[in-house]
Amino acid sequence: MSTKKYTVITGASSGIGYETAKVFAARGKNLIIVARRLDRLEALKEEISAIDPDVDVVIRAADLSSNDEAIALYESLKDYPIETWVNNAGRGNRGDITDPELPNTLGMIHLNVDAVAILSSLYVRDYKEVEGAQLINVSSIGGYLVVPGATMYVATKFFVSALTEGIDMEMQKGGYKLRAKVLAPATTATEFVQTANDLDEAVDYSQKYTRFSTAEEMAGFLLELYDGDKTVGEMDFATMKIKLSDPKHPHLC
Amino acid sequence: MSTKKYTVITGASSGIGYETAKVFAARGKNLIIVARRLDRLEALKEEISAIDPDVDVVIRAADLSSNDEAIALYESLKDYPIETWVNNAGRGNRGDITDPELPNTLGMIHLNVDAVAILSSLYVRDYKEVEGAQLINVSSIGGYLVVPGATMYVATKFFVSALTEGIDMEMQKGGYKLRAKVLAPATTATEFVQTANDLDEAVDYSQKYTRFSTAEEMAGFLLELYDGDKTVGEMDFATMKIKLSDPKHPHLC
Repeated sequence: MSTKKYTVITGASSGIGYETAKVFAARGKNLIIVARRLDRLEALKEEISAIDPDVDVVIRAADLSSNDEAIALYESLKDYPIETWVNNAGRGNRGDITDPELPNTLGMIHLNVDAVAILSSLYVRDYKEVEGAQLINVSSIGGYLVVPGATMYVATKFFVSALTEGIDMEMQKGGYKLRAKVLAPATTATEFVQTANDLDEAVDYSQKYTRFSTAEEMAGFLLELYDGDKTVGEMDFATMKIKLSDPKHPHLC
Repeated sequence: MSTKKYTVITGASSGIGYETAKVFAARGKNLIIVARRLDRLEALKEEISAIDPDVDVVIRAADLSSNDEAIALYESLKDYPIETWVNNAGRGNRGDITDPELPNTLGMIHLNVDAVAILSSLYVRDYKEVEGAQLINVSSIGGYLVVPGATMYVATKFFVSALTEGIDMEMQKGGYKLRAKVLAPATTATEFVQTANDLDEAVDYSQKYTRFSTAEEMAGFLLELYDGDKTVGEMDFATMKIKLSDPKHPHLC
């Protein structure tokens, strides 16, 4: 077992995950970065060693839309004490509900739903009694708001929000030490639109959207959520900043 | 292509699905009944021929927790005009979030989330322009209410509720004819508790719960939802009856 502690970040090859890795590194946190694209993870590792050469960065290439790879990833990390687990990997889907592209939709479900269920379950199982342990799941404002035109994606994010809020309530009711928190970004300039639609070229968010956050801003908001004691960090359109709150979905006490 | 119209009911081997098949048969509706247990479907078919010998009953044995079987089921029904599709199949999971049984949990997710996503998508794709077409997805009051102790199950039902409400909004906004509706039962005396926990013996709900509905009552409530023009039919604890309403989750207009 390593004597160092680590922060795991999935989907670290780009966007919010990539920037989150850098802000945690700037805090001196050792990292385990996960994504499919090994070259991107290696570039990130190099960038981090420029930020702080003492930060240890472990790389894991995995396709988390495979249930087996998600489980294998977790098992491969048995020897690392993990103080924070960030399930950031996720994507949108192509097509809409009237014209579904089923393999694309199912890939999204396996990534947004199954992988978050697997990795949240295993992390909670092993770290529920550990002081300071945090599970941060990246959902969306669409995890709290049905958005016609993005129905299937939104449904996966309702899953993530309800799951994470439920875990945090169970932890607090049961007297466990782990905290579970939901980050709910709105439009963020990342590879999201490109990946959802399998586009060859990057999307220029400043041309397409009047209001959006950058991935750097969102990583800063994730850190606010991490530092605070609230369960939910949701983008507030009025201020374009994060608003921390208690669980938002109705719940039985 | 058959000249008759059919109502598909998944999870028809017991509980709400079994009773729903009987109430639709009593209306003279031809049925396609789906479940893993062929012997139960054959018994149901016999029971229905006693209710109305003119009702045609088509049997399909399928394990909908397999993505492939769910898709194959839909494709096997190409020659049947389907006026109503009821995604009733679903189950709870064993263990809780602090002590997960991952294969059991994943089986639940594949049934409650994936199969509903697959069958809803394909039905909406093919029937969105058909007058009178209805998609009824059986969720739970847990699709609107986080229930600590049932966190993972609840998360799957948040998926179902958000998906179905989103579909209905998209249909109405787009001027399509299909309606999508959510049934949200509370505790109902079925094989639910037995199946979730893999118990050998049936559970006596009257000993275990002070308030519950019978599967017959719930099938009657599903029929009220079917006959009405509201999107959601949710159990009301105050009256132990169904309360019909517009979409309940917050939404973008």
